[in-house]
Amino acid sequence: MTTISMHSASAPALAKMLGNMLTWLEAAKAHATAKNFSTDVYLTLRLAPDMLPFTKQIQIASDAAKGCVARLAGQDVPSYKDDEATLDDLAERIRKTRDFVLSVPAAAFAGSESREITIPRRVGDPLKFDGLSYLQHFALPNFYFHATTTYALLRHAGVPLGKLDYLGG
Amino acid sequence: MTTISMHSASAPALAKMLGNMLTWLEAAKAHATAKNFSTDVYLTLRLAPDMLPFTKQIQIASDAAKGCVARLAGQDVPSYKDDEATLDDLAERIRKTRDFVLSVPAAAFAGSESREITIPRRVGDPLKFDGLSYLQHFALPNFYFHATTTYALLRHAGVPLGKLDYLGG
Repeated sequence: MTTISMHSASAPALAKMLGNMLTWLEAAKAHATAKNFSTDVYLTLRLAPDMLPFTKQIQIASDAAKGCVARLAGQDVPSYKDDEATLDDLAERIRKTRDFVLSVPAAAFAGSESREITIPRRVGDPLKFDGLSYLQHFALPNFYFHATTTYALLRHAGVPLGKLDYLGG
Repeated sequence: MTTISMHSASAPALAKMLGNMLTWLEAAKAHATAKNFSTDVYLTLRLAPDMLPFTKQIQIASDAAKGCVARLAGQDVPSYKDDEATLDDLAERIRKTRDFVLSVPAAAFAGSESREITIPRRVGDPLKFDGLSYLQHFALPNFYFHATTTYALLRHAGVPLGKLDYLGG
């Protein structure tokens, strides 16, 4: 039977989109090979001078996914080093994130809709949410923001992708 | 008490992001005025030649939001004419969509997690989902795709926006 829960409303969608992102990176690699440029070119692409570059978009998508799952499950958020220097490193980061997202048992999310979630910020007071507001108004839109921006950067760079690659099979 | 339901996992987040989009259009208008160009310039912007332009990104974000709510509530999806020709028209489309999203009572979503949802496609067989899969793997990622692409087009055009404008207050 299909049921909705804080787990079913988060982890499967995050894991699926992370898997989709891996297929975009494969397409990016094939495009670079076909056009004879280094995949390193992708790493510093930006949509605007004051937007974060490609590598950072993927790192933050990863942070958003692992942060969402860990916080809802009441666990410490796993800390990754942000030292990815190649497209392959970024793919590995995505795989590691997806493995973590899938590793947390659904039962750990029980009651998380009303758990208080605190998000530290670089500037200003931390943000406070109940778990459901955090999921709906922060974690999911933020994750999809960085996934979509990753996709948009690749499309802008000529990588042949379409909406079905974004959404996955 | 906070609870998660198909309604609480969809409509409030869609309505909030639609409201955020209105603030981006206000910023876009102010930017055009300050730089002395017509807001019509935004309407045809694309991130890649084979991606849909700005107007279409907003129309599809609207379609994704009203389609999600109507389908989960077991209603016909309201049909809008896609005849928006100005930035103000697009803002009106967003407001109309938000009003619809907020107009459907939460009770109408009851049981929608296991309802069969069929999405017609321009090419190929229709997509079939249960309601929960539709929400998590299609409706939300698709909506956020078009919202984020709208935002990205404005950022690419120099409109001064930041992540907090994307996420809203």
